[in-house]
Amino acid sequence: MFTLPQEESRAPATGLGSASTRDSNYGDGLERERSRKPDQKLPEFCAVGDPAAMFSSNSSYLSSRGGIIKWFWDSAEEGYRTYHMDEYDEDKNPSGIINLGTSENKLCFDLLSRRVSPSGISSSQGLSFLGFPWNTSLIRACCLPQQPWPEPGDPGSRSVSGTTSLSQSDMLRVEPSLLQYPDWRGHLFLREEVARFLSFYCKSPAPLKPENVVVLNGCASLFSALATVLCEVGEAFLIPAPYYGAITQHVCLYGNVRLVCVHLDSEVTGLDTRPFQLTVEKLEMALQRAHSEGVKVKGLILINPHNPLGDIYSPGELRDYLEFAKRHELHVMVDEVYMLSVFEKSGSVLQLPDPQRTHVMWATSKDFGMSGLRFGTLYTENRDVATAVASLCRYHGLSGLVQYQMAQLLQDRDWINQVYLPENHARLKAAHTYVTGELRALGIPFLSGGAGFFIWVDLRKYLPEATFKEEMLLWRCFLDNKVLLSCGKTFECKEPGWFRLVFSDKAHRLCLGMQRVRQVLEGKSQAAEARSSHQSQEPRSQHR
Amino acid sequence: MFTLPQEESRAPATGLGSASTRDSNYGDGLERERSRKPDQKLPEFCAVGDPAAMFSSNSSYLSSRGGIIKWFWDSAEEGYRTYHMDEYDEDKNPSGIINLGTSENKLCFDLLSRRVSPSGISSSQGLSFLGFPWNTSLIRACCLPQQPWPEPGDPGSRSVSGTTSLSQSDMLRVEPSLLQYPDWRGHLFLREEVARFLSFYCKSPAPLKPENVVVLNGCASLFSALATVLCEVGEAFLIPAPYYGAITQHVCLYGNVRLVCVHLDSEVTGLDTRPFQLTVEKLEMALQRAHSEGVKVKGLILINPHNPLGDIYSPGELRDYLEFAKRHELHVMVDEVYMLSVFEKSGSVLQLPDPQRTHVMWATSKDFGMSGLRFGTLYTENRDVATAVASLCRYHGLSGLVQYQMAQLLQDRDWINQVYLPENHARLKAAHTYVTGELRALGIPFLSGGAGFFIWVDLRKYLPEATFKEEMLLWRCFLDNKVLLSCGKTFECKEPGWFRLVFSDKAHRLCLGMQRVRQVLEGKSQAAEARSSHQSQEPRSQHR
Repeated sequence: MFTLPQEESRAPATGLGSASTRDSNYGDGLERERSRKPDQKLPEFCAVGDPAAMFSSNSSYLSSRGGIIKWFWDSAEEGYRTYHMDEYDEDKNPSGIINLGTSENKLCFDLLSRRVSPSGISSSQGLSFLGFPWNTSLIRACCLPQQPWPEPGDPGSRSVSGTTSLSQSDMLRVEPSLLQYPDWRGHLFLREEVARFLSFYCKSPAPLKPENVVVLNGCASLFSALATVLCEVGEAFLIPAPYYGAITQHVCLYGNVRLVCVHLDSEVTGLDTRPFQLTVEKLEMALQRAHSEGVKVKGLILINPHNPLGDIYSPGELRDYLEFAKRHELHVMVDEVYMLSVFEKSGSVLQLPDPQRTHVMWATSKDFGMSGLRFGTLYTENRDVATAVASLCRYHGLSGLVQYQMAQLLQDRDWINQVYLPENHARLKAAHTYVTGELRALGIPFLSGGAGFFIWVDLRKYLPEATFKEEMLLWRCFLDNKVLLSCGKTFECKEPGWFRLVFSDKAHRLCLGMQRVRQVLEGKSQAAEARSSHQSQEPRSQHR
Repeated sequence: MFTLPQEESRAPATGLGSASTRDSNYGDGLERERSRKPDQKLPEFCAVGDPAAMFSSNSSYLSSRGGIIKWFWDSAEEGYRTYHMDEYDEDKNPSGIINLGTSENKLCFDLLSRRVSPSGISSSQGLSFLGFPWNTSLIRACCLPQQPWPEPGDPGSRSVSGTTSLSQSDMLRVEPSLLQYPDWRGHLFLREEVARFLSFYCKSPAPLKPENVVVLNGCASLFSALATVLCEVGEAFLIPAPYYGAITQHVCLYGNVRLVCVHLDSEVTGLDTRPFQLTVEKLEMALQRAHSEGVKVKGLILINPHNPLGDIYSPGELRDYLEFAKRHELHVMVDEVYMLSVFEKSGSVLQLPDPQRTHVMWATSKDFGMSGLRFGTLYTENRDVATAVASLCRYHGLSGLVQYQMAQLLQDRDWINQVYLPENHARLKAAHTYVTGELRALGIPFLSGGAGFFIWVDLRKYLPEATFKEEMLLWRCFLDNKVLLSCGKTFECKEPGWFRLVFSDKAHRLCLGMQRVRQVLEGKSQAAEARSSHQSQEPRSQHR
């Protein structure tokens, strides 16, 4: 049993027990929690479930694991409160905090709202066309002339305003079967639609099968369920770091499964061809290190397109990672929630060396900008895994009405291909172009692979010292200047000074946010420039 | 650490390790799983999370707990398949299986569908009144003259057919905030509405507070979350048996928490005033027994109105149980999912001796006949517990769109009080009157306290021997004669021969189902009657 010495006086840090991670601060990437105070300590997780090793909860009402679970909320809540007490609003609170920390796509609410709303509901005119067929060519004509972006005074989403009164009434059907207990894997009509959808958008060589699909209320739940059914308590998954930090909780809070970081470097040396490159060699080393520390590794988590790096693994790279996993009989969980949010190139994994151990996740939270809708899906050819996850789905179920809506949305290829995706990609690209232009003007290095909603920004030269304490101070400077970012520690990045900057927001908020970022950095730049010559080499490519 | 010897050759039975429970078969009451083959063995749960005590999974891809989780699905699936392969349909499969086993209210889909649907969607005429105000007095006039029930050829829900084209368009609002990451406790507007709703319907002496409300995707999730945050691995909750058997899984699959049964008897002896009566003495004895076996008990689960007994604890009884819990510093989880499905009397618990350890659950699955909607709520004054549960709610989240719908529904007191509840209660009562009349005509004893959707039926006299094997054979006879019931073992009833019969179905299905029940029993009655004189005393009251 893998345990660490307990520290009762303070909750120790996470990680695999290496000095570097145990000393470091913790923040997770859970989107609502991006503002966790970065100096808060994470309780030690390896011990959950092992009574002898549990540290005491600070509530007499909770179990020790309950205390840890509550800790996650409290620590997130503190930062979150700062933001929500002073949230930016164009009219009511123009000096409030701009949120460039949460990875949500706020660029296409107009399109989504019109697609999902029943007739008339989203239209302030009260005008509706009940049953009016969706005229894709008309919409397309309205959408496609992409306006320059951002344009002063333009909210960034008016290009399809001519369609305001066009809405569909196909989104709320109330049938007895939708109100009754569902098949916990998801209604068959939805799993069939998901299989067709993924076959098409992942360019699957053969049609995917509905019986390999499990539908549930988001990928957080999927991580939780997979961790539980694949691992014993205390076992681990490998994950390249930096990574979307909320996964730490997802595999741990219920499943008591740990993450073993494969730490990546910004410096390009040896065989690496780009900053933060994942190689099989690094995977092998991390696996060996875990074994030598007595940690049993059961799988590998890959995020593709990557969060926070914003890039996409090449088919060759993916094949290498998957073959590494196959050699070691590791499961691979491929998180593809940004699959369709690729505005410069595209790729997905569904040709697999070890299909029985490869489990692909997708959700609508990112690609359809609906994190509040709580819809995620697993595709796996392993029936045992699908069944075990389905058995846990009674705790991750989603409404029959939402299942109906999702099936309607996913089957509307005309809308997706001709309205939503082109417009969404155009808006993402425009916002990305604007932010990267601003960063270049400021002389700030960054990584961005043309996918996702964020840019991985190198602000190391603005830190007086290369420490996470300084990173946190800079994060606070941003917050004090009313702009919220996510700092690298949140993603378990081992180099202090990296930040994730979300660009998928409306023009007026994004411009104002970038203005505030610039103010902070310009205020620091003289001192920073003096130090910059001592810094380590910048990432080779600024514009990926 | 409480462990039992492992049996690798077969999965051992559940229970607290007493001979009686370990030898017995298992089935859970999870509604979709009421048809689990009752002779299947339950894996031993106390051992989950304790590697030394885990029995091996039969899948090389799953962890041992994953194997157990999958076992639950497989064992349920087998019985479920039988039903779903031959589901009754009035037109397409009139000789298919009638389901009187699943506790769902199928009597009011017409009302619900009209209330939830947007204009026109639920109306086959395509006629709609967008924004037309809900004319409760009109509806009421249509609803209240209760038709005789059941009436040949009447589907049981036509009494409000005059309102078919009246529908509201207030149920699908798509606002950005509903599509974005929510407050995991639930949107504030919904928690406010839930607090008002519970204050009103629980007749709370003071208004309940939204900050004490947590909203999630059903009470199954709530059991899972509460077990995890209140108990360490292997700790236990007391639960009076018979009980809704799915709770076994809910507290165990993720939380690895066990149930200690407080076994109740049908015989009325000593201080008991009715069959299956829970007394403080029985609670004390079960607690002592658990302690003597080294099991740490952290709480008590009360189901009120009770499933499967269908009765309601009196205020005096409830106070006694809560004070027992307070004496022993036990949490009390009060499952009130049938709170408003009381058609003869009513009661609820919200005046509490130990509010910091009392956690009340409610959901719309039963009272609003929408088990597929996945909406449940916790009310607790204990902030630590509320916060810890909220922290797990990222795995139990429900769509923002559903949250909006629920708030709309719960705030519509006119519809609830003047349309839905009176009509629902009238239909429940009519169906109940019909089924109890049939049972009386057959001379079958039963318990039914005027709440819930089911009658607890004593078929002991039809068993040649008082064994669970014979109970299972009778269950199979019903299934072979195309009617599905839930047998007592499913509810951990310790006396073989009790069945739960659900009556909340449309007249034509219910009549046919009862006809098939009668055929089976009449076929067995000669032999059964010969044996009946040797049976133990029947429950004192047949008609509670």
